[in-house]
Amino acid sequence: MKEVNATIITIGDELLIGQTIDTNSAFIAQELNKIGIWVKRRIAVGDNEKDICQALDEESKNADIILLTGGLGPTADDITKPLLCNYFGGRMVRNEQVFQHIHYLFEKVFRRSGPMLERNLKQADVPDNCTVLMNERGTAPGMWFEKDGKVYVSLPGVPHEMKGLMQKEVSPRLLKQFQMPVILHQTLLTFGVGESTLAEAIKDWEEALPSYMKLAYLPHYGMVRLRLTATGDDKDRLEQELEKQIIQLKELAKQWLIIDEDLTMQQVVAKLLKERKQTVGTAESCTGGYIAHLLTMDPGASSNYKGTVVAYDNQVKKDLLGVSQQALESVGAVSEEVVTQMVKGVLQNLKTDYALATSGIMGPDGGNEKKPIGMVWIAVGNAKKIETKEFHFRFDRMRNIEQTSIAALAMLQQFIKAQNK
Amino acid sequence: MKEVNATIITIGDELLIGQTIDTNSAFIAQELNKIGIWVKRRIAVGDNEKDICQALDEESKNADIILLTGGLGPTADDITKPLLCNYFGGRMVRNEQVFQHIHYLFEKVFRRSGPMLERNLKQADVPDNCTVLMNERGTAPGMWFEKDGKVYVSLPGVPHEMKGLMQKEVSPRLLKQFQMPVILHQTLLTFGVGESTLAEAIKDWEEALPSYMKLAYLPHYGMVRLRLTATGDDKDRLEQELEKQIIQLKELAKQWLIIDEDLTMQQVVAKLLKERKQTVGTAESCTGGYIAHLLTMDPGASSNYKGTVVAYDNQVKKDLLGVSQQALESVGAVSEEVVTQMVKGVLQNLKTDYALATSGIMGPDGGNEKKPIGMVWIAVGNAKKIETKEFHFRFDRMRNIEQTSIAALAMLQQFIKAQNK
Repeated sequence: MKEVNATIITIGDELLIGQTIDTNSAFIAQELNKIGIWVKRRIAVGDNEKDICQALDEESKNADIILLTGGLGPTADDITKPLLCNYFGGRMVRNEQVFQHIHYLFEKVFRRSGPMLERNLKQADVPDNCTVLMNERGTAPGMWFEKDGKVYVSLPGVPHEMKGLMQKEVSPRLLKQFQMPVILHQTLLTFGVGESTLAEAIKDWEEALPSYMKLAYLPHYGMVRLRLTATGDDKDRLEQELEKQIIQLKELAKQWLIIDEDLTMQQVVAKLLKERKQTVGTAESCTGGYIAHLLTMDPGASSNYKGTVVAYDNQVKKDLLGVSQQALESVGAVSEEVVTQMVKGVLQNLKTDYALATSGIMGPDGGNEKKPIGMVWIAVGNAKKIETKEFHFRFDRMRNIEQTSIAALAMLQQFIKAQNK
Repeated sequence: MKEVNATIITIGDELLIGQTIDTNSAFIAQELNKIGIWVKRRIAVGDNEKDICQALDEESKNADIILLTGGLGPTADDITKPLLCNYFGGRMVRNEQVFQHIHYLFEKVFRRSGPMLERNLKQADVPDNCTVLMNERGTAPGMWFEKDGKVYVSLPGVPHEMKGLMQKEVSPRLLKQFQMPVILHQTLLTFGVGESTLAEAIKDWEEALPSYMKLAYLPHYGMVRLRLTATGDDKDRLEQELEKQIIQLKELAKQWLIIDEDLTMQQVVAKLLKERKQTVGTAESCTGGYIAHLLTMDPGASSNYKGTVVAYDNQVKKDLLGVSQQALESVGAVSEEVVTQMVKGVLQNLKTDYALATSGIMGPDGGNEKKPIGMVWIAVGNAKKIETKEFHFRFDRMRNIEQTSIAALAMLQQFIKAQNK
């Protein structure tokens, strides 16, 4: 079966001056992948007619499907809609369904009073040569064009609007229109091993992979994801083959293996706690609430996560976590003694089964010779046992915060697994 | 003066299946912009020789400078280095300086014992037709090629390594090699107004802008950034012109204006607190530590931010913040009464000048008719006064967390400004 290829074109000067980070492309790529469409290229261009047209011309040669996001808002820097109308030789007409929907949104959802602006109503004007994709979540509709056997879909750049349109309108229509090969992925999450050492350990296995399978190494804050991808026609056979290879890979990587699913470290922790009907609370100094955020960003967090004390200030460490003045004075906040007391404070004050604590120097200021920037103490424990570990991370602040958080969650999941053996 | 254009090519299958979000391009674009280089396009391609070569061929026609990231790691899915070597007609040679640096990193920085892997040492092999850019932060060096008056720079994809190379090696070299026009940006941060209403309010001004100035609207979680860009040759004149226009724009947008700098909402709060030598603490339920994270992600947070109680569980609200059982039973956790008590709890227990509290339903579960998903109460206060507000956000969980956090910080900065008049 012929591979179906797509290109994603994102539009907006803000992408080219680096003011916004493009998260839309990753989401679109994931959605397309699920239905067997391979994204071959992604292009970002500015709010500039010539550059957008050039991208359309070129990508129609590279791909079967061209997905565009951005450039559909109500303001003057948005030029995509009239451009597409011209590009495909149509003319603008008012769409009654979109018109009604915009009225509904403004009155019932946004709860705005007063007359609507002409620039908002103009969002109901669409090219007469496209299929309109209704955008439940916003005023700018999606647009589906076809030309010379290629499909062009234009979506608004607001992430949650684009997401709704992708899932409700775009994917189902693409599934109807194209015959896709099967693309299967399986991912293993490892921690505590470098990419090179891992590659060395699985070298013979990787070299013997059949040609329709491909392994990717995805390093991220001390974790390495191993993603094995298989492409073919026969889904059942492909699944079996993939499963067979994954069993071998798991055996080869077992000493670093966290889980054989594409989960985040916090999702692994949540899964373990849920299975065991246990709870955790955290005490964070240097991570400043980031671990709490990781533990609450996924739905359903409330049943196993109780709370956090972010004790940035030493007085808060004393008052809310019972850390002793003596420890703070003699060994300082970044010490084994203080993180141990922080764990005890959480267990006592938040009444959780497990507690996790961090204290360190994230930079760029605050380090000294004995306690350099990147030095971190982490403690994890329960009523019976507390384990501690010293880390030395490097370089920039945000990266140190993320590395510390992942290392802490990795210690926690290991501790939970060991306690319940 | 001729505009100097760049293209960024990012390499890696992980970008095309959506497993990683490309943050490198935004950073590179910002750095290039600072020195007057305009990024015209950004391309992402897979770990595939044909696609990378095609991108190189095409982009050499579009731009003066082609920056590549990714594909330089030690594992088998990294193919960029030999490809570039062939593309520019060179051959691989071992670079002694890189070789020594890799040894130094493994022994002194990574603190690894045992013999080094051949695949790591191979990172010291570089094309003989490039200038090697030393990578202080990692084993893969950057590479600088020149051909037909164009510059091609290849950088590793690990963000902090790429960042170090951009700032220390690439930007200074580009500044020497090219004559750049001046590109100036100034940004206003507004809050609490839709893109359309704002556009309507400044319409006449925007239409009268000279041709070398351009305004962009950058909406983000209830904020809209207005970025005015001016391009020209005479820096002093351009600065004066930009300043003149900005004064007019500030007057037109004054009712929604937060600050006339390109700051985040948390940076505005930190700035106000620093000027006033005051402190804040937060009590978070639904935001789960995200406000704490925002307040601590920038350096220097520790002087004005004391801490946070993330009270996800009602027992924690009672024990650590003094929220009453009676309020939780009668009106529930998501209520004006409870967020007011949470603010009082912070002021009392964390001893801060200001306190901020959130409680709401972030979804996708947990809503009901009286308290739907997206309903949030926020309270802000000091010893004299507490202000509360009810919000209704919509749609997905992570977006609700971010919107709530920004709205809370916006309330806080307004409260601080009002108290100190």
